[in-house]
Amino acid sequence: MEQAREIRVAVVGATGYTGAELLRLLHGHPRAKVVAITGHGKAGQPIASVLPSFHGVLTGEVAATDADAIATAADAAFCGLPHGASAPIVRKLRERGVVVFDLSADFRLKDLASYREWYGEHDAPELVGEAVYGLCELEREALRRADLVAVAGCYPTSSALAIAPLVKAGAVDLDSLIVDAKSGASGAGRGLSESTHFAQLSEGIRAYKVGGLHRHTPEIEQTLSKLAGRPVRVTFTPHLVPMIRGILATVYARLSQDISGERCTELARALYEGSPSVTVLDPGVNPDTQWVRGSNRCFISYTVDQRTQRVIAQAAIDNLVKGASGQALQCFNLRYGFAEGLGLEAVGLFP
Amino acid sequence: MEQAREIRVAVVGATGYTGAELLRLLHGHPRAKVVAITGHGKAGQPIASVLPSFHGVLTGEVAATDADAIATAADAAFCGLPHGASAPIVRKLRERGVVVFDLSADFRLKDLASYREWYGEHDAPELVGEAVYGLCELEREALRRADLVAVAGCYPTSSALAIAPLVKAGAVDLDSLIVDAKSGASGAGRGLSESTHFAQLSEGIRAYKVGGLHRHTPEIEQTLSKLAGRPVRVTFTPHLVPMIRGILATVYARLSQDISGERCTELARALYEGSPSVTVLDPGVNPDTQWVRGSNRCFISYTVDQRTQRVIAQAAIDNLVKGASGQALQCFNLRYGFAEGLGLEAVGLFP
Amino acid sequence: MEQAREIRVAVVGATGYTGAELLRLLHGHPRAKVVAITGHGKAGQPIASVLPSFHGVLTGEVAATDADAIATAADAAFCGLPHGASAPIVRKLRERGVVVFDLSADFRLKDLASYREWYGEHDAPELVGEAVYGLCELEREALRRADLVAVAGCYPTSSALAIAPLVKAGAVDLDSLIVDAKSGASGAGRGLSESTHFAQLSEGIRAYKVGGLHRHTPEIEQTLSKLAGRPVRVTFTPHLVPMIRGILATVYARLSQDISGERCTELARALYEGSPSVTVLDPGVNPDTQWVRGSNRCFISYTVDQRTQRVIAQAAIDNLVKGASGQALQCFNLRYGFAEGLGLEAVGLFP
Amino acid sequence: MEQAREIRVAVVGATGYTGAELLRLLHGHPRAKVVAITGHGKAGQPIASVLPSFHGVLTGEVAATDADAIATAADAAFCGLPHGASAPIVRKLRERGVVVFDLSADFRLKDLASYREWYGEHDAPELVGEAVYGLCELEREALRRADLVAVAGCYPTSSALAIAPLVKAGAVDLDSLIVDAKSGASGAGRGLSESTHFAQLSEGIRAYKVGGLHRHTPEIEQTLSKLAGRPVRVTFTPHLVPMIRGILATVYARLSQDISGERCTELARALYEGSPSVTVLDPGVNPDTQWVRGSNRCFISYTVDQRTQRVIAQAAIDNLVKGASGQALQCFNLRYGFAEGLGLEAVGLFP
Repeated sequence: MEQAREIRVAVVGATGYTGAELLRLLHGHPRAKVVAITGHGKAGQPIASVLPSFHGVLTGEVAATDADAIATAADAAFCGLPHGASAPIVRKLRERGVVVFDLSADFRLKDLASYREWYGEHDAPELVGEAVYGLCELEREALRRADLVAVAGCYPTSSALAIAPLVKAGAVDLDSLIVDAKSGASGAGRGLSESTHFAQLSEGIRAYKVGGLHRHTPEIEQTLSKLAGRPVRVTFTPHLVPMIRGILATVYARLSQDISGERCTELARALYEGSPSVTVLDPGVNPDTQWVRGSNRCFISYTVDQRTQRVIAQAAIDNLVKGASGQALQCFNLRYGFAEGLGLEAVGLFP
Repeated sequence: MEQAREIRVAVVGATGYTGAELLRLLHGHPRAKVVAITGHGKAGQPIASVLPSFHGVLTGEVAATDADAIATAADAAFCGLPHGASAPIVRKLRERGVVVFDLSADFRLKDLASYREWYGEHDAPELVGEAVYGLCELEREALRRADLVAVAGCYPTSSALAIAPLVKAGAVDLDSLIVDAKSGASGAGRGLSESTHFAQLSEGIRAYKVGGLHRHTPEIEQTLSKLAGRPVRVTFTPHLVPMIRGILATVYARLSQDISGERCTELARALYEGSPSVTVLDPGVNPDTQWVRGSNRCFISYTVDQRTQRVIAQAAIDNLVKGASGQALQCFNLRYGFAEGLGLEAVGLFP
Repeated sequence: MEQAREIRVAVVGATGYTGAELLRLLHGHPRAKVVAITGHGKAGQPIASVLPSFHGVLTGEVAATDADAIATAADAAFCGLPHGASAPIVRKLRERGVVVFDLSADFRLKDLASYREWYGEHDAPELVGEAVYGLCELEREALRRADLVAVAGCYPTSSALAIAPLVKAGAVDLDSLIVDAKSGASGAGRGLSESTHFAQLSEGIRAYKVGGLHRHTPEIEQTLSKLAGRPVRVTFTPHLVPMIRGILATVYARLSQDISGERCTELARALYEGSPSVTVLDPGVNPDTQWVRGSNRCFISYTVDQRTQRVIAQAAIDNLVKGASGQALQCFNLRYGFAEGLGLEAVGLFP
Repeated sequence: MEQAREIRVAVVGATGYTGAELLRLLHGHPRAKVVAITGHGKAGQPIASVLPSFHGVLTGEVAATDADAIATAADAAFCGLPHGASAPIVRKLRERGVVVFDLSADFRLKDLASYREWYGEHDAPELVGEAVYGLCELEREALRRADLVAVAGCYPTSSALAIAPLVKAGAVDLDSLIVDAKSGASGAGRGLSESTHFAQLSEGIRAYKVGGLHRHTPEIEQTLSKLAGRPVRVTFTPHLVPMIRGILATVYARLSQDISGERCTELARALYEGSPSVTVLDPGVNPDTQWVRGSNRCFISYTVDQRTQRVIAQAAIDNLVKGASGQALQCFNLRYGFAEGLGLEAVGLFP
């Protein structure tokens, strides 16, 4: 019986922020045992010198990524590699029977033509069909049987969870969807750039990839189209906010029915009933990303602007937890038959 | 000839953030002479203990607000008082012939019924007709003759400057306007609250007064309606960002003509030609509030999302300068026949 | 056998930051069961509206503080009340047999005259002798038998842990001790003040209570004097840093022996051997408060400036965890015979 | 007569932070005319794309650095190049008769052996003797006749200004000096590194180059030794604070006389009388770096800890202004006979 055993896991690409966060969360998971920690540029370095919060906790070195070694030691692997770099390694791991939770975008888009348009050639196209999209609240049953999980992106998780109940209920005009999203700097990863240089990011806010240029656009649309049963397009504008963690997605839609914020809240609570990671707030309570820092939780709220007949749906998550590593672990729990929220019970830091 | 003389000015309500910023800007203005600095709760305290950046610069004390004394000493007064508190003092100053630049909302709304709905009873309704709305780029000529200026609010300034060129040109569907605005903490003023307590604001972003509840909504609508020649409604969502200064207004509209971002840019450059405080950036350059910190400048840019036929108009300002005190001084320059940008030439801090 | 049972605990004064942090940590503690959550000004309000990270987790209301009710329901109480307000309630709880972990300063100073000098009259002086100082690494054995624990303050914890090994070893000139400490804003608590208003704290650093005025001075001295076996005085300068959590204590001392940073490190590792919350870093690695955010860990390092024969001892903690609520729980673990680090295993957020 | 003419200046290395700040300050200087803006890696790029606050203000491109062209066009040059890169260009400029204000460390240390120890080989050692150290308050007269100015570093400026009055007066034990300094991220320059990556710098504070390893150590010692008339050594510990601008130097010294904070204040006010950039605060007022952001001002205060007979001298500056570019312009004013504070009158942003 699967629930009884401990699952041996590898963290591949552990030296980036999602990898580090996986290690932090796995450190508190009672049924996962980390048996391999691998990286690329930093292989051979002490883990604690790369991930300094682990001083005194993890004493080994970052290993090179070797699919054979991983397959021997581990039942499952979490891959925290960049887009494009992930697919070839995932293929090797799958060929060796390792269950894979991939945090890159490589297996998220079901339409290969779309993948090519937004990301370039795909290195393991034969696996795309097998992959299950790792957004637990919307794909729960499929995830229980998945051997390859394409963990959902941070913006798509927050955006889709916010508006999904209304799309599913047919309550909004599908041609009116606008996502104005705000992310902390960790969403841009550990790679250095002027745009995330402290002196140039602090004390400012800016949009980027405006006008439908961000690669998460087709991912959001894929999820909403599936829910709507017809193609949906969104205007998506990401912004960079001077904070480390957090995404707030503010989603605008024109109501197709004359319903209240209370009714939207009811629809969402019905959809997310039994979901340990989602809390739908009472109307009038606006979620703050500060409230979910370090937790796998998603806070959602709905407000109707009666003057303009639009609904404003908001969702706040920690991009590194519910938007990445926590969600990966939530998928892992579903796949291995554990309680969905096992090891993910932590409440956000306040303050 | 007015240009030749030095204008004696009073700063009323100098101990709040807009008052402090007025003093900072007036300190560098060659034709204004500060003759009175007044406050309420802090009258009698040394100016430098209330406004610590003035240690070693301003040596006197904050005076109580006395309309007779001000009228004797000053030609003009800047009023940095809260809404409601301003109107009675403005009336007294106007009765004594003082030219007033009022930074509160008390004289911004031309429709008294609207004022009552959003703010409550008006204490000087007879002056509303006389007041000129202090958004220099759109009301330049009227401001040259104004004796009472209702300096535009911070959100309305950024929102209106961003979308005005397209509204004026009839390029956008007037029923499709959404303003998603992001403000630094100084916009909430110097009054203490949990929402601006460092430990509860840093590392988070949140919306507030969602669904058409913010008082700047009718002000934005008044400006756009005047430009459009018919009533316009907007969905306006303000957000609080963990930074001191800055507003980024991200304005969404459905295009009513099939035009490009370049064409939008041309329309805006035509409208703002000769405006020293507005720079319309090339398409593809997204304005950052960090770039205008401490300056009276507004950076605007336009992007068209071809996939959804929407335009995204962005404007970045320093809420305390172009969104308040700098704009007041710009109005002052127009009123007294000085160069519009006199004393406002400073470039933003970078970084 | 005590280890076998679940301990029923009350959190008194739960609506401040240390109270909130206690609830967060207790939520993950396997052997503590929270049976009462009380507050003062906010009694009767829903817990989640006061502590928003608990939306969807804690559904009740904040109760008023009633010693009888607490004594009936709980074995132990954590008190997160302000100095002065704590003593009377602690007395009531102790009279009813409740084991108390008090996070205020009321029972930390053994010398009542000193307490009076720094804090004023003491409301429960008869309990001072019974109280055990809750700095686990230095008072471990006494804490196993304590029924009243005076949990150590945040500055004293970091300062004393940094320099204790050298004081104990007689390696430093006891007349040369200087503590230059830097704290995040949460150390000032949830009470509002201009000094912790976001707009006036962000983008600046300042010292406060300079020149031996801070109340933690006698607490630091008490600990070091006990270790040294003779009275010790320190120059202590706290600074406020624009971050939410964290204290970095930089402690300067003149060496009384010609020893290296490596030797200091050895002395500290010997003293803290078996201490789950302390990690002594290799010389050359400077601790960052960011590395311990949300964790109960203390990172320490030693550097000797050969040019001036001074040692620089640094310690980084999260002021709300190892500097307050986590330490309280560590004391609780010792008192009830649990593993010292039970429920405190979390690694800091990175980033 | 020099005061009458406009000085043509070049900014060499204009694309880093000190270069950008020079351009910002020169934009407001009435007697300096920028005739050349040069850079290295970014030559050929539009100035506004490199320094985005200049959008709409500066329209040209960054030029390559050509000493002949500079000498033809300019009377004086400000060099904002990194250490080591500066000396060869300064030599070329001096050979062509250009007056040079060098912001690098290349000409600050009078002892070439010390330079070699801390920085490596010197590329223009013959110019070291000619250079005047650009700390205006202590070298005012020499600067009036300087053709090569080695503008003082940011840490040395704040540290030396704080303690200089007491060193000069013989009021402190010269073997007891400790400088605990805290700097914002812009002090580390525009070059990218993990230590200034937003996600790894925000919400943390750390020391670096602890134990006498920072290159500003000999510079501080040179200044204090000159004042003391004998060699002085300091323990210097720099810290990185999550803010863009600002340095707070907290300097500790044992008093050699039993004097009060008031007396220290008097000594400092006497030394800095007539200095437009220095304000000595009343005892009890602790300077905040936030109060001097964007200004060329230095706020200093003195506190005596009677319990330990130590004085704590604090100085707050904006590292990019009084710690670099503003000070360079102050030197320029002295050299060309302008009022020392010309173009440097701006008050810091508050908030």
